[in-house]
Amino acid sequence: MTTQEQVHDTARRARTAAAELAPLTRAVKDAALHAMADALVAHRDDLLAANRADVAAGREAGTPEGMLDRLALDEGRIEAMAQGLRDVAALPDPVGEVVRGYTLPNGLEVRQVRVPMGVVAIVYEARPNVTVDAAGLCVKSGNAVLLRGSSSAYRSNTALVEVLAAAAEKAGLPADAVQLVPGTDRESVTHLLRARGLVDVVIPRGGAGLISHIVENAIVPVIETGVGNCHVYIDADADLDVAERIVLNSKTHRPSVCNAAETLLVHRAVAGEFLPRIAKALGAAGVTLHGDDTVVSTVDAAVPATEADWADEYLTLDLAVAVVDSLDDAVGHIRRWTTGHTEAIVSNSATAIKRFVSRMDSAAVMVNASTRFTDGGEFGFGAEIGISTQKLHARGPMGLPELTTTTYVVTGDGHVR
Amino acid sequence: MTTQEQVHDTARRARTAAAELAPLTRAVKDAALHAMADALVAHRDDLLAANRADVAAGREAGTPEGMLDRLALDEGRIEAMAQGLRDVAALPDPVGEVVRGYTLPNGLEVRQVRVPMGVVAIVYEARPNVTVDAAGLCVKSGNAVLLRGSSSAYRSNTALVEVLAAAAEKAGLPADAVQLVPGTDRESVTHLLRARGLVDVVIPRGGAGLISHIVENAIVPVIETGVGNCHVYIDADADLDVAERIVLNSKTHRPSVCNAAETLLVHRAVAGEFLPRIAKALGAAGVTLHGDDTVVSTVDAAVPATEADWADEYLTLDLAVAVVDSLDDAVGHIRRWTTGHTEAIVSNSATAIKRFVSRMDSAAVMVNASTRFTDGGEFGFGAEIGISTQKLHARGPMGLPELTTTTYVVTGDGHVR
Repeated sequence: MTTQEQVHDTARRARTAAAELAPLTRAVKDAALHAMADALVAHRDDLLAANRADVAAGREAGTPEGMLDRLALDEGRIEAMAQGLRDVAALPDPVGEVVRGYTLPNGLEVRQVRVPMGVVAIVYEARPNVTVDAAGLCVKSGNAVLLRGSSSAYRSNTALVEVLAAAAEKAGLPADAVQLVPGTDRESVTHLLRARGLVDVVIPRGGAGLISHIVENAIVPVIETGVGNCHVYIDADADLDVAERIVLNSKTHRPSVCNAAETLLVHRAVAGEFLPRIAKALGAAGVTLHGDDTVVSTVDAAVPATEADWADEYLTLDLAVAVVDSLDDAVGHIRRWTTGHTEAIVSNSATAIKRFVSRMDSAAVMVNASTRFTDGGEFGFGAEIGISTQKLHARGPMGLPELTTTTYVVTGDGHVR
Repeated sequence: MTTQEQVHDTARRARTAAAELAPLTRAVKDAALHAMADALVAHRDDLLAANRADVAAGREAGTPEGMLDRLALDEGRIEAMAQGLRDVAALPDPVGEVVRGYTLPNGLEVRQVRVPMGVVAIVYEARPNVTVDAAGLCVKSGNAVLLRGSSSAYRSNTALVEVLAAAAEKAGLPADAVQLVPGTDRESVTHLLRARGLVDVVIPRGGAGLISHIVENAIVPVIETGVGNCHVYIDADADLDVAERIVLNSKTHRPSVCNAAETLLVHRAVAGEFLPRIAKALGAAGVTLHGDDTVVSTVDAAVPATEADWADEYLTLDLAVAVVDSLDDAVGHIRRWTTGHTEAIVSNSATAIKRFVSRMDSAAVMVNASTRFTDGGEFGFGAEIGISTQKLHARGPMGLPELTTTTYVVTGDGHVR
């Protein structure tokens, strides 16, 4: 078989599985999730052996230790993945939820009901725990899942999917509910992206390069996730203690994730007081400031910002800083450069807050709160498949309901027009 | 300017307009819709003159009279378009609706709020009334709209957009809220489809050819609409009076639209009684039956069906007919051939209905009702931008809320993680 035939064959088997998964009860799906969790723990030695082979191959190929650490499994990480599956089992089943329901004047009963998407493909990088997370969320939401991890974790992912699929099947799920996409080259991803009619949605999880490759090449629908050039705007009416706390937390709490702040905008009215203060606090935390002319002339340690600084998602201890003449200038800057993830305003002015919020074009707007709160866990979703930065279907943190679509069930007793 | 520059320039102006449209109140938008309606009526002579030129050019080019009729405007049609805008003004504004709202344990207030998409592009064929409908729905939902009609209606659409845009601007909307995409060739459509970051969504309205061209070529998100290979399944437990009424209505009430039935599946247990009866009724209505072996041997007037008959959306007085051995065979046939629009079951068995409904993979399932009810007007939406046959974002009839996305507004008082 060619790579294309292999990918299509896998997707076709997923479609068949999806038809069987859709009507399953929550009880059956939850039992399968628990069986999958138990199987991970029971097979931990095989999983760790496969993972050691990936790590060794990666080390030989000169992969940086930081990336090897993200790739590596140990007993604790396997237990955490198993617990993740049990946590998903404890969440409500989105399938069958009546989103809207009413009776028309002619007596027809209209019900908009949540149903699984069908076949969900997840394309991701590095960490093998995504394999387990994604499989669990898809099983719970009644979807067949096609998993395409990075080639560096191929042995780990193969072993994980083997264990998960066997446990799921033994618990009464179709054999092809959880599948790994065959192949480790880009070609297999491309065939997946063009399998219209077989794959219902592709969700990329990874860096900007992966995501834009997928958006450019996909014919099947895509949910874009993750790239976050998040801004914090300090208004003229800000409480500067609050501002300092929020900027520090947004930038330094976990700089490598998508909801970390990358640009700080300060209203000119408070720049003289706030800039030295925040520069000191950020400097103490190891943050490099990339400033505009005003910032560079005020803060000794700041380096001059270029256009790239306004655009970049650093994911490091760097922060672009600009002084703006007005709230509307802040709005203009953000609309020009944002990736549509999260923006924050710090202000005590109700007028300023209302104006700012109504003029943003992003998945989330934080008012006097850290950008770090844009997160499925923080929002109380219990599980998260990613953070959508697009406008169709789902925007912001995506939980189980975002892995479903709806169907209208219309019941009459012989109604005609 | 090249065609690409022209399209991008138009889209960029739409983006600027979108930022101004988003915070507008319902009162301002409704006043603009009424002004647009009045302007259509006031300028009817100019509109009719432009339309006569399109019709004359079409007739000269040998366009069939049926298509010319769809293209032609008269005073009644202009009044109907104006009334359509007034009707949209009377509908509730989706923008600002709080879809979900709760307070987290830490005191953070989370609100998921409906906001406009931004820039919506509509690509459509033939009828100039789509120009007015789409403009009205986008203005109401706070979106800037890029209209790309067919070249055969270019003069009509140009005149309509000129009148609508001028009236909207006079009523306080941004000048570029309603724009026609320049150009009449496919190239301008292609640039529109690839204007990622400028266009938020493309909605094609037209035949299968237009829709698949757009899906294949688009980088910006697309909402697929319309193609309907709709099935009616007559179960072993069907009331055959009801079955006859529903099949006749689904097929003949308006055969040229997407929610008309194209395939009839009859359970073998009732085929002997039902086939001659429905063949007689459909024959009297001028319908040609394309049957499988059993149908052809039972019904004299039936012609043999080929694979294409199971796949086709006829949009004419033709109907594919097959006899199935079981409900599951009907499910299998439908899942194999459906375009995911609407399927119907006629049955008095609660068990059969539950099994059928839970195994469909379509936007709407009718239980003892005509397929013709899948319609925004029938569902009580007041207006319809199209019927989505895809699974992301919107599925089934799309009204005003489906032209919006949401944003999370999270309010704290200095919250950090």
